[in-house]
Amino acid sequence: MIRIAIAGYGNLGKGVECAVSKCNDMELVALFTRRNPEDVKTVSGVLVYSMEKAAEMKDDIDVMILCGGSAKDLPEQTPAMAKYFNVVDSFDTHAKIPEHFANVDAVCKENGTVGIISIGWDPGLFSLNRMLGQAILPCGNDYTFWGKGVSQGHSDAIRRIAGVKDARQYTIPVEEALTSVRNGENPELTTRQKHTRECFVVAEDGADLNAIEEQIVTMPNYFADYDTTVHFISEEELNRDHKGIPHGGMVFRTGSTGFDNGNKHVIEYKLTLDSNPEFTSSVLVAYARAAYRLSNEGAKGCKTIFDVAPAYIHPASAEELRKNLL
Amino acid sequence: MIRIAIAGYGNLGKGVECAVSKCNDMELVALFTRRNPEDVKTVSGVLVYSMEKAAEMKDDIDVMILCGGSAKDLPEQTPAMAKYFNVVDSFDTHAKIPEHFANVDAVCKENGTVGIISIGWDPGLFSLNRMLGQAILPCGNDYTFWGKGVSQGHSDAIRRIAGVKDARQYTIPVEEALTSVRNGENPELTTRQKHTRECFVVAEDGADLNAIEEQIVTMPNYFADYDTTVHFISEEELNRDHKGIPHGGMVFRTGSTGFDNGNKHVIEYKLTLDSNPEFTSSVLVAYARAAYRLSNEGAKGCKTIFDVAPAYIHPASAEELRKNLL
Repeated sequence: MIRIAIAGYGNLGKGVECAVSKCNDMELVALFTRRNPEDVKTVSGVLVYSMEKAAEMKDDIDVMILCGGSAKDLPEQTPAMAKYFNVVDSFDTHAKIPEHFANVDAVCKENGTVGIISIGWDPGLFSLNRMLGQAILPCGNDYTFWGKGVSQGHSDAIRRIAGVKDARQYTIPVEEALTSVRNGENPELTTRQKHTRECFVVAEDGADLNAIEEQIVTMPNYFADYDTTVHFISEEELNRDHKGIPHGGMVFRTGSTGFDNGNKHVIEYKLTLDSNPEFTSSVLVAYARAAYRLSNEGAKGCKTIFDVAPAYIHPASAEELRKNLL
Repeated sequence: MIRIAIAGYGNLGKGVECAVSKCNDMELVALFTRRNPEDVKTVSGVLVYSMEKAAEMKDDIDVMILCGGSAKDLPEQTPAMAKYFNVVDSFDTHAKIPEHFANVDAVCKENGTVGIISIGWDPGLFSLNRMLGQAILPCGNDYTFWGKGVSQGHSDAIRRIAGVKDARQYTIPVEEALTSVRNGENPELTTRQKHTRECFVVAEDGADLNAIEEQIVTMPNYFADYDTTVHFISEEELNRDHKGIPHGGMVFRTGSTGFDNGNKHVIEYKLTLDSNPEFTSSVLVAYARAAYRLSNEGAKGCKTIFDVAPAYIHPASAEELRKNLL
């Protein structure tokens, strides 16, 4: 049994707790939190410890799955935990991945551990498909679309507007753009042509709805470059119809082959996810298996989804995989 | 430059010849044939040699890409070539993969070469997606659909019927089945519910069309378990409208997460290919890059798409991949 621990018990940590329970070759041995451990009630009943206690349990844990946020938690926590454990995280600040990689790699190499960073679906499975697509069709174009799904960052941005009580924002790919890409037309698409944004907003009593809508649709970076629709709804409606955290999207590689580039090909990888954090957690847990196996083979250092041979994430043996899945 | 050679110059070999020309880090140094080399006219002008000459060119070639058929050529040629070269093939007789793997692995280990077998899209990219999907969503179902595309085996089967001059058969996924899978309904599908077969047949003058159609639709293994449509067309029409070799298909993993399995997820990997052999060739060439790099690192033995870390197939460095594609 691979002994898994979780650091951080938000949506992602809860997803990992559940995903581990679905793997016959894993057991969840501990949960670490920065809160008072006695205040944390887990679904599975796994033992909860203070984050500082982790190092003492070095010999009891095979892989630590980091479930904190990318902005503040993971840049510190992943390297700190990599001193004692093989680690997996979902660090998703794309621009800072090289720096995070270097930090984790240095600690892992010094301490003989394996780190696998930026695991999930984007970064993660989407990155893998962008990479495979480029390698296979060198003459071609990449497209990534997100949604339909909830963007927490955009929802938070709306909530910061005066007069807004709660909000939920959906990112939606534009159907015409998808059709053009799927037809191999290799369109050049502006930001506005790729995605629309749909907002469900609960306003405070007496708030100026027109002013709120205007502030949303003109907000730089978040909304100004998109066609944005704003719906004002009741708190009851929001809680009834918009409580989920669905997400997903598509990665395309379109390209041509032949000496005259006469044959077109479209590779599409599509995710439709009821729960963004639970799916991300499932990917993290599969790569925890890889971290464990790589470490057992003597590997050390930081890796990404690009560096891990796929067989490491599946519980079956190489023979079984060749026989049943190839 | 990675020095590539091709063994066999059918559709696949021609595809490899072209795919290599699109890779800046590769050069095509030789083509080997069982025909009289003087009778083989290549598109690129690459030098053509008799198959028996290959061993003499051991030091001039980094990777030999095998482009023969799976039924008779590859079971002999891949192990034979692996004595002298790193090899990549597209062996696609699923049931015989374990045996082929063992044969190639033994030769590679004895001779210090790397072999990567069963590369293409199925086996190949579809296998990879079946495997990743199972590992990420352990509670779920797999679905593979093929088409719309030309099945050479089924086209050949029709051509063997008396009175048939030429034929082309398309395998087509059933739209209702796709919709059900995409909706996460986890249907149990019979052979007939998954695919239909559409046949375009050129009959000889005076042939009994009803008898031909009856023989097609009742043919065991090939057509009897499917809803099959037969169209009789002229030779001119066949050559005008059905000369291409398109193919493709979809691999799905549908599964659920959460302690109550309350959240559903659908992973879809879809290929739409104008030319089956040219796309397969493109995958072969990308994995030739991996064979070269693995061999340079001292690896030896046989591998499949499951065993190769994805980064090995992309020309960019690990740093560039992390910076630009993760």
